[in-house]
Amino acid sequence: MVVMAFEDVRLPDVTGMSVGILGGTGPQGRGLGYRLARAGHRIVIGSRDADKAAATARELAAMPRVESASVEGADNRTACDTDIVIVAVPWTGHERLLTELTDALADRVVVDCVNPLGFDERGPYALTVPDGSAAQQAARLLPGSRVTAAFHHVSAVLLADPEVDLIATDVLVLGDDREATGIVQALATGVDGMRGVFGGRLRNAGQVEALTANLIAVNRRYKTHSGLRVTGV
Amino acid sequence: MVVMAFEDVRLPDVTGMSVGILGGTGPQGRGLGYRLARAGHRIVIGSRDADKAAATARELAAMPRVESASVEGADNRTACDTDIVIVAVPWTGHERLLTELTDALADRVVVDCVNPLGFDERGPYALTVPDGSAAQQAARLLPGSRVTAAFHHVSAVLLADPEVDLIATDVLVLGDDREATGIVQALATGVDGMRGVFGGRLRNAGQVEALTANLIAVNRRYKTHSGLRVTGV
Repeated sequence: MVVMAFEDVRLPDVTGMSVGILGGTGPQGRGLGYRLARAGHRIVIGSRDADKAAATARELAAMPRVESASVEGADNRTACDTDIVIVAVPWTGHERLLTELTDALADRVVVDCVNPLGFDERGPYALTVPDGSAAQQAARLLPGSRVTAAFHHVSAVLLADPEVDLIATDVLVLGDDREATGIVQALATGVDGMRGVFGGRLRNAGQVEALTANLIAVNRRYKTHSGLRVTGV
Repeated sequence: MVVMAFEDVRLPDVTGMSVGILGGTGPQGRGLGYRLARAGHRIVIGSRDADKAAATARELAAMPRVESASVEGADNRTACDTDIVIVAVPWTGHERLLTELTDALADRVVVDCVNPLGFDERGPYALTVPDGSAAQQAARLLPGSRVTAAFHHVSAVLLADPEVDLIATDVLVLGDDREATGIVQALATGVDGMRGVFGGRLRNAGQVEALTANLIAVNRRYKTHSGLRVTGV
């Protein structure tokens, strides 16, 4: 069933789809959890530590415009028992976690939003990733999953701020599985202010991840929380 | 003298600065030449073939909202005798051209806008560049120049269309020389609709160049000429 039209590209209906967030207690995962709960999804915050996940879930459930029943916490493996699984762990833990969860993530729509960045005295920079990108590493480790990449450039600060009603950014969604990228585009478009825009195949994910270093440079220069809009779409 | 304020970041006055465009007969160089001529700059279109450059210059000078005296054509070396030199040659000719012009480009503000991309049956993709990016290659080859990177994501089609009054895109300007990046930001901001936004150091140029592959993917999917806006700035 098609219920949304985004320009002339139709997106699937993701109403009622549940979302697991691996690393959901970190800033990015927590912020995405809040926004997607506000958008009406059932959210399972995942963490290595289920108690910590439950604490974050209780915090989110108490926030404005979230239905209290819609957020729960669990260990990362349990959080994979959802329709869409967002990977929001630090890059340093990415490979190990996905290797452990290959079976649990089979057949899932996986959304990798990990940015492999380094920081030194001159600021942020993109790390060299042997697979080309975190998302391509995920695709290699999860051959039975439907791997996409998205949500790289969202500001964790703005996502988690209940006073911010509109998240003024587009989300580039990458992947080689057109149905899966459509689902993730629809998921992003369901957040007030966001649009999910198809951004290419997974082999072009590296620069999207790395661009986060540039947006951090923007944030520092302009003392802001920057985002991106795609014009002409 | 400071005459423009862009949010709270002050940009220098670039009124009266001349702009040379190496590879100015190609689509991107030609489009930038038209827009910068409209913005009031004296433009020298450069080419390996001075006659070809002169022909392009005559075409641009005859276009709407360009003063006929403001565009001329020359060989690439002569085009370096300007205040700001834009490098808009194909990636395949980048290294050789800059090696030949190292002396002519000394002390110049150089703006590299080259995107090292490949194309195959699955579409565009980022090439691996040994220096990290075209801009970093330029910085290595031009140790006496003030190398910046900018104008990667502008649509040559929109730039060259006289019916398009506003170019609705921000230009990420990268570089390690703050005065030079300020000049290039001001140059971009002088084009109606554009803003020049500082986007980080040269070491973060690779992903900005490569992101052009994603915007080409956007163009194909949405049948558009896409651009980017930085939100929060």
